[in-house]
Amino acid sequence: MPGIFISFEGPDGAGKTTALKKIMPLLQAKTDKEIVLSREPGGSQISEKIRKIILDIHDEEMDARTEALLYAAARRQHLIDVILPTLAEGKIMLSDRFVDSSIAYQGGGRQIGTKEVADINNFAIEGHLPDLTIYFDVTPDVGLARIKKDHAGQMDRLEKAAMSFHERVYDSYKEVVRDNIERIKTVDAAQAPDKVVQDAVEIIVQRFPNIFTKGE
Amino acid sequence: MPGIFISFEGPDGAGKTTALKKIMPLLQAKTDKEIVLSREPGGSQISEKIRKIILDIHDEEMDARTEALLYAAARRQHLIDVILPTLAEGKIMLSDRFVDSSIAYQGGGRQIGTKEVADINNFAIEGHLPDLTIYFDVTPDVGLARIKKDHAGQMDRLEKAAMSFHERVYDSYKEVVRDNIERIKTVDAAQAPDKVVQDAVEIIVQRFPNIFTKGE
Repeated sequence: MPGIFISFEGPDGAGKTTALKKIMPLLQAKTDKEIVLSREPGGSQISEKIRKIILDIHDEEMDARTEALLYAAARRQHLIDVILPTLAEGKIMLSDRFVDSSIAYQGGGRQIGTKEVADINNFAIEGHLPDLTIYFDVTPDVGLARIKKDHAGQMDRLEKAAMSFHERVYDSYKEVVRDNIERIKTVDAAQAPDKVVQDAVEIIVQRFPNIFTKGE
Repeated sequence: MPGIFISFEGPDGAGKTTALKKIMPLLQAKTDKEIVLSREPGGSQISEKIRKIILDIHDEEMDARTEALLYAAARRQHLIDVILPTLAEGKIMLSDRFVDSSIAYQGGGRQIGTKEVADINNFAIEGHLPDLTIYFDVTPDVGLARIKKDHAGQMDRLEKAAMSFHERVYDSYKEVVRDNIERIKTVDAAQAPDKVVQDAVEIIVQRFPNIFTKGE
């Protein structure tokens, strides 16, 4: 594929999505290649319909394996409709979340098993892993504190349950990062937002010096 | 599980669904156990929503692997919501199609590969295979002729394409039957409809003589 594919991963509250809004123009200033930003499973009509099922009935009795299969289905269609055509045109594809999210959230968080979830995602992506993944590293307590900063008072029973879920997600992300040290590079997301953005841009530019040639 | 789980499989035009309407009361007359009939992915709100996506946009650009993952997701939720609770109550579960349909249609028909489709379905069903599967055997030419009996004239280009698809489905079913000779029993579905029903009932009663004790 002539283009490059970069995914952005991390637990809730890592600041990924906000950072990406700043990362994209900074990268664009350094290259003539078009940069396309997509959020799973955006940009695809079929994927959006699948996503709607996951969100619509998330709190009802959806089984964890059903959820994992639906995420894999949405990912597959997003890959076919958005990611591969973008790469085929030589563009730079930035994706807010990709396969590692499912391994951490469904495999670890929902306790299906990271190997099992990796397998069904391999069926979905057929080897099309990102060229580079930026992992926004933040511990669950810091991440959840950011999300809940508007909540006053103590954590209730449900929030404590959520905490153990987020701890499993965090541990699984750590495992995925350890197993993919060539592909996945870590940014300390507990730093000030502008420093997080700067670190991410630096990693990307250093990895693809022939693409991001303009500037400073 | 105290109940018994029987699935019914076969290519299009095999007469499965029509036969099941007659098989069910004939079996019910022979047992005091309650018989529950379900059609994949029936009876489950989440499964119906997934099914709606598959049917709604079937003719648009849905990738074959997306389709296979959606069928597996719907099957998983059907298993959790309908099949396992029915079996736990000691009832007899009849399912019009189950995992073998995906292996034949997506694995063979859509050429993803029977092994790959079997693997994602193993993720979905976690070993909960039917106790017995009745395979309605009919060649693609006979099956399609039944479906198209109201169509006059010659086959057009699209119908010919459909024929090669249905031939692959048929070949894959044959392979699945060969690989599961203990679980899957074949009925000659080219026979007269009442004979097909009679053969299916006979196989089921002979397999579970302690369940279907009333009679004649």
